[in-house]
Amino acid sequence: MRLLLGFMLLLLSAALPAAARGETGYDLWLRYQPLEHRPEEAVRKTVQYLVVQGSSPTLAAATAEFRRGMGGLLRGNGFGVAGSAPRDGAVVIGTPQNSPIIASLGLKLAAIGPEGYLIRSARTAEGVRITVIAGNQDIGVLYGVFAFLKRVQLDQPLENLDISDAPKLKVRVLNHWDNLDRHVERGYAGQSIWDWQKLPGYKDPRYTDYARANASIGINGTVLTNVNANADVLRPEWLEKVKALADVFRPYGIKVYLTARFSAPIELGGLRTADPLDPQVAAWWKAKVDEIYRVIPDFGGFLVKANSEGQPGPADYKRSHAEGANMFADALAPHGGVLMWRAFVYAAENPDDRHKQAFAEFQPLDGKFRDNVLVQVKNGAIDFQPREPFHPLFGAMPKTPLMMEFQITKEYLGFATHLAYLGTMWEEALEADTFRPRKGTTVAKMLATPVEPGAATGMARVANIGSDVNWSGSQFDQANWYAFGRFAWDPDARAGEIARDWAALTWGNDPAVTGPIVNMMMGSREAVVDYMTPLGLGHLMATGHHYGPGPWVSDLARPEWNPVYYHKADAAGIGFDRTRTGTDAVAQYAPEVAAQFSDLKRVPEKFLLWFHHVPWTYRTASGRNVWDELVTRYDSGVAAVASMQADWNRLEGKVDGRRWAEVRDFLAIQRREAQWWRDASVAYFQSVSKRPLPAGHAAPPHDLDWYKAIRTPYAPGNGK
Amino acid sequence: MRLLLGFMLLLLSAALPAAARGETGYDLWLRYQPLEHRPEEAVRKTVQYLVVQGSSPTLAAATAEFRRGMGGLLRGNGFGVAGSAPRDGAVVIGTPQNSPIIASLGLKLAAIGPEGYLIRSARTAEGVRITVIAGNQDIGVLYGVFAFLKRVQLDQPLENLDISDAPKLKVRVLNHWDNLDRHVERGYAGQSIWDWQKLPGYKDPRYTDYARANASIGINGTVLTNVNANADVLRPEWLEKVKALADVFRPYGIKVYLTARFSAPIELGGLRTADPLDPQVAAWWKAKVDEIYRVIPDFGGFLVKANSEGQPGPADYKRSHAEGANMFADALAPHGGVLMWRAFVYAAENPDDRHKQAFAEFQPLDGKFRDNVLVQVKNGAIDFQPREPFHPLFGAMPKTPLMMEFQITKEYLGFATHLAYLGTMWEEALEADTFRPRKGTTVAKMLATPVEPGAATGMARVANIGSDVNWSGSQFDQANWYAFGRFAWDPDARAGEIARDWAALTWGNDPAVTGPIVNMMMGSREAVVDYMTPLGLGHLMATGHHYGPGPWVSDLARPEWNPVYYHKADAAGIGFDRTRTGTDAVAQYAPEVAAQFSDLKRVPEKFLLWFHHVPWTYRTASGRNVWDELVTRYDSGVAAVASMQADWNRLEGKVDGRRWAEVRDFLAIQRREAQWWRDASVAYFQSVSKRPLPAGHAAPPHDLDWYKAIRTPYAPGNGK
Repeated sequence: MRLLLGFMLLLLSAALPAAARGETGYDLWLRYQPLEHRPEEAVRKTVQYLVVQGSSPTLAAATAEFRRGMGGLLRGNGFGVAGSAPRDGAVVIGTPQNSPIIASLGLKLAAIGPEGYLIRSARTAEGVRITVIAGNQDIGVLYGVFAFLKRVQLDQPLENLDISDAPKLKVRVLNHWDNLDRHVERGYAGQSIWDWQKLPGYKDPRYTDYARANASIGINGTVLTNVNANADVLRPEWLEKVKALADVFRPYGIKVYLTARFSAPIELGGLRTADPLDPQVAAWWKAKVDEIYRVIPDFGGFLVKANSEGQPGPADYKRSHAEGANMFADALAPHGGVLMWRAFVYAAENPDDRHKQAFAEFQPLDGKFRDNVLVQVKNGAIDFQPREPFHPLFGAMPKTPLMMEFQITKEYLGFATHLAYLGTMWEEALEADTFRPRKGTTVAKMLATPVEPGAATGMARVANIGSDVNWSGSQFDQANWYAFGRFAWDPDARAGEIARDWAALTWGNDPAVTGPIVNMMMGSREAVVDYMTPLGLGHLMATGHHYGPGPWVSDLARPEWNPVYYHKADAAGIGFDRTRTGTDAVAQYAPEVAAQFSDLKRVPEKFLLWFHHVPWTYRTASGRNVWDELVTRYDSGVAAVASMQADWNRLEGKVDGRRWAEVRDFLAIQRREAQWWRDASVAYFQSVSKRPLPAGHAAPPHDLDWYKAIRTPYAPGNGK
Repeated sequence: MRLLLGFMLLLLSAALPAAARGETGYDLWLRYQPLEHRPEEAVRKTVQYLVVQGSSPTLAAATAEFRRGMGGLLRGNGFGVAGSAPRDGAVVIGTPQNSPIIASLGLKLAAIGPEGYLIRSARTAEGVRITVIAGNQDIGVLYGVFAFLKRVQLDQPLENLDISDAPKLKVRVLNHWDNLDRHVERGYAGQSIWDWQKLPGYKDPRYTDYARANASIGINGTVLTNVNANADVLRPEWLEKVKALADVFRPYGIKVYLTARFSAPIELGGLRTADPLDPQVAAWWKAKVDEIYRVIPDFGGFLVKANSEGQPGPADYKRSHAEGANMFADALAPHGGVLMWRAFVYAAENPDDRHKQAFAEFQPLDGKFRDNVLVQVKNGAIDFQPREPFHPLFGAMPKTPLMMEFQITKEYLGFATHLAYLGTMWEEALEADTFRPRKGTTVAKMLATPVEPGAATGMARVANIGSDVNWSGSQFDQANWYAFGRFAWDPDARAGEIARDWAALTWGNDPAVTGPIVNMMMGSREAVVDYMTPLGLGHLMATGHHYGPGPWVSDLARPEWNPVYYHKADAAGIGFDRTRTGTDAVAQYAPEVAAQFSDLKRVPEKFLLWFHHVPWTYRTASGRNVWDELVTRYDSGVAAVASMQADWNRLEGKVDGRRWAEVRDFLAIQRREAQWWRDASVAYFQSVSKRPLPAGHAAPPHDLDWYKAIRTPYAPGNGK
């Protein structure tokens, strides 16, 4: 028997797979893990008790969050056993209306508006040292509680505080492109989180966590349904389902919105027309809106996609977008509702540069929209590409409230498995100078400035949220949801700061962890640009699902659906001439901007091929000709992913095993697919340019036909 | 300031919503919560160390599970710090081949076969007291470890053990009706858990937990794809995805199977025909099978749905089901693969009672199938109704291996939100006496008896597993997954025992909890029968999705798709005459069974209207006429749900809040929908019978047209 000892396996702790012990990512940036880098006692000195006066669902939510957060951060030890009066170390939350303590402090709250908050270290009349989290309304208090919890997690000082903050935009909404059967158009994170079949009877606790996450970053609205709209959601039995969600979200300051199908009066109402100037149509919508507000008194309003990609709209009746939008706006106005009208239009019949069509249709309508209309404009004139110049409509409709539409879900950036932090993309768009009416008027400034006092402002983003346990399809895609909230709250926010905050909240507040993560994030979108669409190329993705490369596609019915329409590569050169010698799309920008984009010497190289058709021999800033530069960029995109892999591998053991392994595997997928993009694109463009690869750059391992033959019919997120 | 004290809210622990503290159900019946009802020390006396000799992926899985389980049950305190030699309290796991200790004990393992296990309290030659978990193969060891952990959780004795167990059926497979785009036909638990887009690069840890759960109940195979098959899964790039799953499942003894689309040689191979007797076709399949086995050496085989509901099959070429099945079987045989061929066929052109068609087509083929074919027969002759008599094919093909096909997903039993424990349904089918070849030959016995020594036996069930965090769409639907494993392991298992085990493992081993839960479960399926299809009615569900009542539907293209085909209610009476005066379907059963079903005096009342058309005045066992009895049953079904609600309400606080609240809400949905079923059905049948409601039974609150107008186009799980 002694011999057997040699065969014995010791069972070490490592026998349990690391994955089993890890986190799923469900907790997002609200993990509230025990503090590691600051002594609990240092926190307890300031934060011993929570004092809430008055009661409301929002205060209850703030209280619950405070308890959850501090309970986690302080290992559930002791916090929350509140005293009956404020003593040193009390945190007092509320408004002057519901908290006599706060009222007694004489805080100046006017400047923070209805949603702002103030966090201040203070003393009561009795000299008790307290921390005050105050707002004019309860929602401000909730935002303040989230801000305070963030400070604790980020090891920021908790004493001598005098902080105030308020959102710069009024409407901060997610757009869910979710169908009633739970399919999510451009969704890469599972199904819709709205389990319509079980609503209203069952309210998944996940809805509450969704509301918490959104409130924590200041999002105050959610459009539940796809812009390619289905009128059925307006039926009474569906409104009951919507109401159930609204009831969950209300304490968190989140209003629900729906997409309105323009033809609903025909489909639901039995009318013969949906003409917005037909009194019966207007009456039908008015009655429908009144019905909605009876069910959901704080309903936010509608989002409408009209006369775009096959959707019905006012043009079907030879009416303008303004006439269409105003009909809804008039029905919503008595209830305080908002009408968001998308400017994303381009027409099958219109042979003009797609880049120009939205401007051409909307700019002349400036001033014709009602006060409660927000025209929702995508960041660029085409469609959520890895890189686009800012949309020429920004600044061009000074009498019309415009809101920004960004896309969080990565339809054109590799779906869930490509790591691409979009904060840098959005920052680039927001800090672009429109020069309208003058230099310095960035897109951010334009968005934040009401066209008249009290007019609406806003930002929308197409959500990347689904039923996956990690919400967004990948751990790093959570950062894009997070960044949306931060930019909607403050369009002048900095992508780097947001990345640092997110990394620390999500992966642990250790510089050895956050440093490499932020580094990966900040370069990640440029990597995607390089391996998909470098030098100002765009819209080269495969047809329909947009998964993988398709620069050769040229057989689709509408010219502007074909990648060849966008790159215009031929034997002589590559790029889309949008200067005066071409489509003159540049003329839609302010003269200063147009002059810069038109000038080959001044156009930023990142937009070179967006605005110019250049010969393959054109010399770029690097000194290489554009062909060599193109290949070089493709390869540097792939190399950047390899570099992210190396960075991530060094973090093994520094973050939990399950999430670490998921990111490792996703980066490996991204690496393979970046290589696919590079190889397929180089093979294709070489077939056009007929030029040799620059030295040191490998030939694609397969011929072009091999890449063209790849089919991925089950790639997720297709429209249907 | 003192006045303010009155406004203070004390923050009690209750401020955190109960839901936030509860379980999601993800852990299934493998929760391994700390022992509550027996002192840890009593367990530790017997279970102090785990000793594993040899190594294999399956032994590693067994080891990990043991550590996970005991670590949870004993609060992670101390267990698993193994000594270097067996001492008192060691648990020794392994086979005689890989464990010298086990080899030295001279255990008699022949009887337990390749998958069985033995658990025995023993002493080594040195007199050390150990517990042995042994098998002939590692998979038996893993099954034994799960059985041992179950004993610990159920507070069963751990000393003086002498247990052996082995499965009675060889092939124990789940059938996933999962499409390649993740849509699940008849799925009510979210999307497919197979995230094909991310495979093979990313293996979701959930796949491992799926394998653990299945292995814990003895399931040894999984058909990954829908029986309405898609040939694309046979493409090389998809086989790589399948391989990734097979690699995860292999250590858990689970083989992967695929559905084979009969026309794949045309669709993938470019052949002009899929005629099974065409040598090119057979050669194509042989090459494809060889290719699969090169990728997945332990591939299980194919499941084929042919010439049924529009699927292609051998009849397209005037070949028999046997000729079709044998072609696949011949390709699979050299690799040890199995071919499962569904007997679920009925033809648009065949005017005969649908009940008779599978028998008519398959019974004459008895003896014509290859040895490695399993003909897969649904439990009843129609289609997974809340209640059906057993399928007449059972016992009627003595020379052909038949396997049972049950449905776990509740396509016809209210989807995820209706609590219906199916164990009682399956027990009813399995204990039915076929009288073939003689009295006492139950369906269970027939399934477990190979048609010749070494021939295959098996049981399949259509899975209810999806991407929902609770796996099955509801907490209680997990019980049906669990029960499948138990019945596949032992078709003579008892539904009540299974319910007790599941309830204790899933909700806590407290009789005050398990008693009411088992009580709810055991009556739950009968409640569904009563409020949907009492007295032997069937197939009255709404068209397509089968959600909600549709007894009035009569306009579908094929007669046997219409509910009116099944109930045949008219002014005179109700029921389907399947006796000699009708379609004579009873003649397909053994004479003794046929005699019983044919005889109005002897037919079990639960099958009355399945086999007989009776006048509304027909007197039932209760003394009521059949009309009054029908209404009474509908109402008692609703009342049974109300009773479950009351039972469940009394459990508040005795189980975790989140799962409790989910079940509460689901029961409320079930109550409303049971009422809907009752009201709509009564309104409809009254419109036919023209009879007054019996005293004490309320009229439906709406007229029949109101119920007919209900449309639920987005109900989940539709085929597409």
